[in-house]
Amino acid sequence: MTLGIGLIGSGYMGKCHAMAWNGVATVFADVERPRLVALADATTELAAKHGRAFGFARSTGNWRDLVADPQIDVISIAAPNQFHAEISVAALEAGKHVWCEKPMATALEDARRMRDAARSSGRIAVLGYNYIQNPMIRLAKSLIEQGEIGVVNHIRLEMDEDYMAAAAEPFYWKSEKTSGYGALDDFAVHPLSLLTVLHGRISEVSADMAKPYATRPDRSGGTRAVENHDIAQALFRTGTGASGVLMVNRTAWGRKGRIAIQIYGSEGSILYDQERMNELEIYSARDPAGRQGYRRILSAPDHPPYRDFIPAPGHGLGFNELKVIECRELLSRIAGEEAHVIDFDTGFEIEEVVHAMAASAAERVWKRIG
Amino acid sequence: MTLGIGLIGSGYMGKCHAMAWNGVATVFADVERPRLVALADATTELAAKHGRAFGFARSTGNWRDLVADPQIDVISIAAPNQFHAEISVAALEAGKHVWCEKPMATALEDARRMRDAARSSGRIAVLGYNYIQNPMIRLAKSLIEQGEIGVVNHIRLEMDEDYMAAAAEPFYWKSEKTSGYGALDDFAVHPLSLLTVLHGRISEVSADMAKPYATRPDRSGGTRAVENHDIAQALFRTGTGASGVLMVNRTAWGRKGRIAIQIYGSEGSILYDQERMNELEIYSARDPAGRQGYRRILSAPDHPPYRDFIPAPGHGLGFNELKVIECRELLSRIAGEEAHVIDFDTGFEIEEVVHAMAASAAERVWKRIG
Amino acid sequence: MTLGIGLIGSGYMGKCHAMAWNGVATVFADVERPRLVALADATTELAAKHGRAFGFARSTGNWRDLVADPQIDVISIAAPNQFHAEISVAALEAGKHVWCEKPMATALEDARRMRDAARSSGRIAVLGYNYIQNPMIRLAKSLIEQGEIGVVNHIRLEMDEDYMAAAAEPFYWKSEKTSGYGALDDFAVHPLSLLTVLHGRISEVSADMAKPYATRPDRSGGTRAVENHDIAQALFRTGTGASGVLMVNRTAWGRKGRIAIQIYGSEGSILYDQERMNELEIYSARDPAGRQGYRRILSAPDHPPYRDFIPAPGHGLGFNELKVIECRELLSRIAGEEAHVIDFDTGFEIEEVVHAMAASAAERVWKRIG
Amino acid sequence: MTLGIGLIGSGYMGKCHAMAWNGVATVFADVERPRLVALADATTELAAKHGRAFGFARSTGNWRDLVADPQIDVISIAAPNQFHAEISVAALEAGKHVWCEKPMATALEDARRMRDAARSSGRIAVLGYNYIQNPMIRLAKSLIEQGEIGVVNHIRLEMDEDYMAAAAEPFYWKSEKTSGYGALDDFAVHPLSLLTVLHGRISEVSADMAKPYATRPDRSGGTRAVENHDIAQALFRTGTGASGVLMVNRTAWGRKGRIAIQIYGSEGSILYDQERMNELEIYSARDPAGRQGYRRILSAPDHPPYRDFIPAPGHGLGFNELKVIECRELLSRIAGEEAHVIDFDTGFEIEEVVHAMAASAAERVWKRIG
Repeated sequence: MTLGIGLIGSGYMGKCHAMAWNGVATVFADVERPRLVALADATTELAAKHGRAFGFARSTGNWRDLVADPQIDVISIAAPNQFHAEISVAALEAGKHVWCEKPMATALEDARRMRDAARSSGRIAVLGYNYIQNPMIRLAKSLIEQGEIGVVNHIRLEMDEDYMAAAAEPFYWKSEKTSGYGALDDFAVHPLSLLTVLHGRISEVSADMAKPYATRPDRSGGTRAVENHDIAQALFRTGTGASGVLMVNRTAWGRKGRIAIQIYGSEGSILYDQERMNELEIYSARDPAGRQGYRRILSAPDHPPYRDFIPAPGHGLGFNELKVIECRELLSRIAGEEAHVIDFDTGFEIEEVVHAMAASAAERVWKRIG
Repeated sequence: MTLGIGLIGSGYMGKCHAMAWNGVATVFADVERPRLVALADATTELAAKHGRAFGFARSTGNWRDLVADPQIDVISIAAPNQFHAEISVAALEAGKHVWCEKPMATALEDARRMRDAARSSGRIAVLGYNYIQNPMIRLAKSLIEQGEIGVVNHIRLEMDEDYMAAAAEPFYWKSEKTSGYGALDDFAVHPLSLLTVLHGRISEVSADMAKPYATRPDRSGGTRAVENHDIAQALFRTGTGASGVLMVNRTAWGRKGRIAIQIYGSEGSILYDQERMNELEIYSARDPAGRQGYRRILSAPDHPPYRDFIPAPGHGLGFNELKVIECRELLSRIAGEEAHVIDFDTGFEIEEVVHAMAASAAERVWKRIG
Repeated sequence: MTLGIGLIGSGYMGKCHAMAWNGVATVFADVERPRLVALADATTELAAKHGRAFGFARSTGNWRDLVADPQIDVISIAAPNQFHAEISVAALEAGKHVWCEKPMATALEDARRMRDAARSSGRIAVLGYNYIQNPMIRLAKSLIEQGEIGVVNHIRLEMDEDYMAAAAEPFYWKSEKTSGYGALDDFAVHPLSLLTVLHGRISEVSADMAKPYATRPDRSGGTRAVENHDIAQALFRTGTGASGVLMVNRTAWGRKGRIAIQIYGSEGSILYDQERMNELEIYSARDPAGRQGYRRILSAPDHPPYRDFIPAPGHGLGFNELKVIECRELLSRIAGEEAHVIDFDTGFEIEEVVHAMAASAAERVWKRIG
Repeated sequence: MTLGIGLIGSGYMGKCHAMAWNGVATVFADVERPRLVALADATTELAAKHGRAFGFARSTGNWRDLVADPQIDVISIAAPNQFHAEISVAALEAGKHVWCEKPMATALEDARRMRDAARSSGRIAVLGYNYIQNPMIRLAKSLIEQGEIGVVNHIRLEMDEDYMAAAAEPFYWKSEKTSGYGALDDFAVHPLSLLTVLHGRISEVSADMAKPYATRPDRSGGTRAVENHDIAQALFRTGTGASGVLMVNRTAWGRKGRIAIQIYGSEGSILYDQERMNELEIYSARDPAGRQGYRRILSAPDHPPYRDFIPAPGHGLGFNELKVIECRELLSRIAGEEAHVIDFDTGFEIEEVVHAMAASAAERVWKRIG
């Protein structure tokens, strides 16, 4: 019997989940085609329209219908962040597997509740950290694990976009305190998810948060004070003693989807930039003298699971396809297999780091995690 | 009533069509979800297996079943190249719309037959030149049309891969004369399709073809003479008098999916490389002195139809998604709308250029086209 | 009467000064050819050999001979760092102009003494911060001053090399506490000199310093504890309220002469990397929508003083030529003209920042400067 | 006794020679400092002014004074191209060594006369093909000779600048027939000199030449027909049977000092671009599967003679420093040592290729060389 799927939310992330659910069995030969049972959104009309477009059999204006539906085995949660906790907990308690978009929750307490619900449910609960699914990131992970760059001793992580870079950008909910710390929880979770996968956990931080614009125009022609921080940076140490820096900026003119990673080890280093997501650069100190240099590797069938998408190297995967891979990993985990995902346990640890950074910035002291 | 789809062939290109047919309505809000009626492949078993995986309702080991099926409106042809003509003509004569993978055919006469069948059928017949669908290529086209680089006077086109670069690569059908000229018809049609879209038609050529390896190992431990050319290059002039060079090489170590384009005009120039398919570079002589330079534009919602895939800039489309765009353009054309496709008429012109290049190389003289 | 030059030290930096003194009048049409009077080094033999090679009329094993020589107007100091203070002060007190290599001194107190000697001497005292002389850095400065990227609000500075990256690299004086803090004063002064020129002063820091290798092999087959830090990073705020991060690493495998700068403003951003020192990238939010991107500007005659070296754009200056420019700026300053240099006053401010960073790292608290 | 130097011409190339003569002994420890005896230019005044600035002891308005001067051993010829033959022959006949800027001559007959004069003089006669002196080019040469990319089978050479790209650029002598073929002899000799050094000789060509602008404005407000070709391209075969393409364009907007080289072999490939002259990229098919990619090597002390300029890697040489290396190679050749230069014999062969290309373009047929 194939799995029945319910999707909550049909904004961009909902659409991205829908693309994944539609595509996963075509791409992966060993995946049984899932049944697209029902889509829920805020209104019946919206749900009906997108349900049809996305290929779902039914639709509803009430997400609780999905939680109660015995036809549904897995619930994709792409609803606004503030509902993640409530829906996740309800779904898990109803015995559904959960695939929830990040960030996990806006309050650490909610994230903890989600983690605990997942633990006690015995169901699979996975977060939508799709960047870790890139075959190039998996290649980086494998290179590091095989010792190709030796012992990692220094890491730099940057995530930058410019969608809030215009000073003239009017005040909207993203600048409200209730939406979170700003760039820190908007962006930082992504590089932190990559750090978790590629290296390990952060143990200590000294952070700073900055406001490039103290006020923004409001819709009425006046201005309104910005309540959180569009820029954040943190010095950190990891459990192994490696040092590092995390930098995030959502007002970084020119940066569109940048997640730049530098990982230095005792035998080499690795570079990655999400804006060129089909490339990975490695420098090996073991190459012969005078012939050393960064080697730019293009994504290829040698880098699982690229081959499932394209049999020829260098042709390029897209951002949306990372979600298809994530979907497949979720299905593997549900089937009891080894899978490359960030579950609610690990997701909670990432949230802890974010909150420690915010506290460090507020109190201007170093903070230990855990 | 939505369109019924039949797919012939379930190798990689068949899978690519299947991904497109599964995804097109999820991606494009204004596209009615097509019905996946039937998949045909060489054997009943293969067809059944992939039909199920790809979401088709039925399957068959005989492609003529699809041509005869009144439920089917559009036939995707991803069968081996030598069958393109026969299937296309049969499908068109049966009143189906046709979406056929490139190259059009192995013999110019077959291509002509396909073109003529399309003309007399009154149906839509489109070729799978997916590279032209890249939003970055459409941006290049629009920049050129708006005069941003002035009058185009010089063009360089390169397409290089290394899948046949190993001297130790055993002889297989790709090196047989019957499979075609080699790199020339294997690759050249792609940059030529881009030239057609971005600039116009070639009027004259002087070509050369080369064999980096005169023989290749055969499976029995001996060697076999290579019968066609892994490398080809041609000087050309276009209808507007612009000069240019086309270079293709399927033994180019290090190149994976390179299609490098340089277009020079009287006011600027444009650069593109398929290996970084989400980028386009433009140089404008109108920028202020001392501040001129190539501007690297990342694919973004401003570049249709990127926005239908991702609402944020710089996140990156993948190769497979170009086929989804192509699918949508095909559907627009069927609906009688303006569409960005290469139909059998234009496709035939591209074939004419390829054959003229081969003749020029064989006779070592300049050849006029048309 | 042309200026008489004395050079102290004939190691690499001495040679670099010699190249500058030999070349400056050939390059710059308005510079009177200086007289190369005498070279001093540790021994008479070394001084004689290099004096002849470098084109100096005389040589000596005693640097005080140069200080006392009435034929000499300017003294180039390329002696080991620990002698900078003693020589500079003696030369200034003897009425010579001084061109001293960085870092200014190993102890803050020495740097202060040098600054005070310069102030009371009325002579010109300039430090060898050659990176600021790059026409591309001057272009960046001019773009910022003209408001091309608006108000600067965020800055990231990285300087990385790998000359100490090998764990097997034996312990030598660079790892001794007496040689300084490690990467912090070895490297940080360079990006800080660039920050000074491009933006302004740092007012507050939170720093961390790390040892990738706790011990290094000593020459006797054992190991010795490393006494300073090969890696350092600091969060900072500048006088204008901009936030930023400084990162330096002399064990960064793969990096050779990297000084990477990111400067973000309210209207655009600027990127620079010393490893591609003939390029500058600028992103302008004023470019039309859909055509925005980083513009890569190549060094050219439009960027003073590139034209004095080469009349054609894009041909490339080299690292050594920055010293020729610096030499010319020094001569301009001596002639009482406007000049682009870092004098002992500004140099002392840079040293203050370095020492504040070290203190912050040691005490693990934020430190204010000045 | 050190060598006495005479320099004829003090425009940019003369200045470049002067920089080399001033710097060569400072840079290279084993080079005896040459005596700068006299500079000649078109007028006494010009010669006097630049002679002083460039450090020459005497100056003259008559180049024959240098040829007659017994103090002078080597004559640098940086006079206009049409005088190369006359001066070279006179200097060689007077027993001087000659260092002559390229192109060798404007007429093939003149080049032959120069070659013959060099042969019968027994003196050293070297051409100013400075691009071959780049340590990165020498690295490429050594990689190829060591078999790192196997047997070379395909080569692409491009040289592009935009100094004549503006349609509004008024007609001047560069567009006159008497100045030569246009881009072909203006540029093509450079990539051909690199080909000579890296691979070998061209045996056959099919060329085309184009005029992006048929007319240019003249100074009187009218227009004048352009008499030569700003764009040229040629298919070629080399003596070893390798195929290739040469492309040159002096109206290529955006290109400043581009000389892009692609060399493909049976085991790898090499990429180079003069605009990033401190980098070389190599792809090796011997790297492990899944870890293959272009390796970007930065110029470093491992690449002779970089170390003579800078002891640290990645700091970058400049265009002018290539002339210093060339000067040192000339001195080595004069001293009877192995040297890396293009002498009049090899220079003449390069000229033969250029003229064959022009003939091929005019007659629209393939042409054999030699």
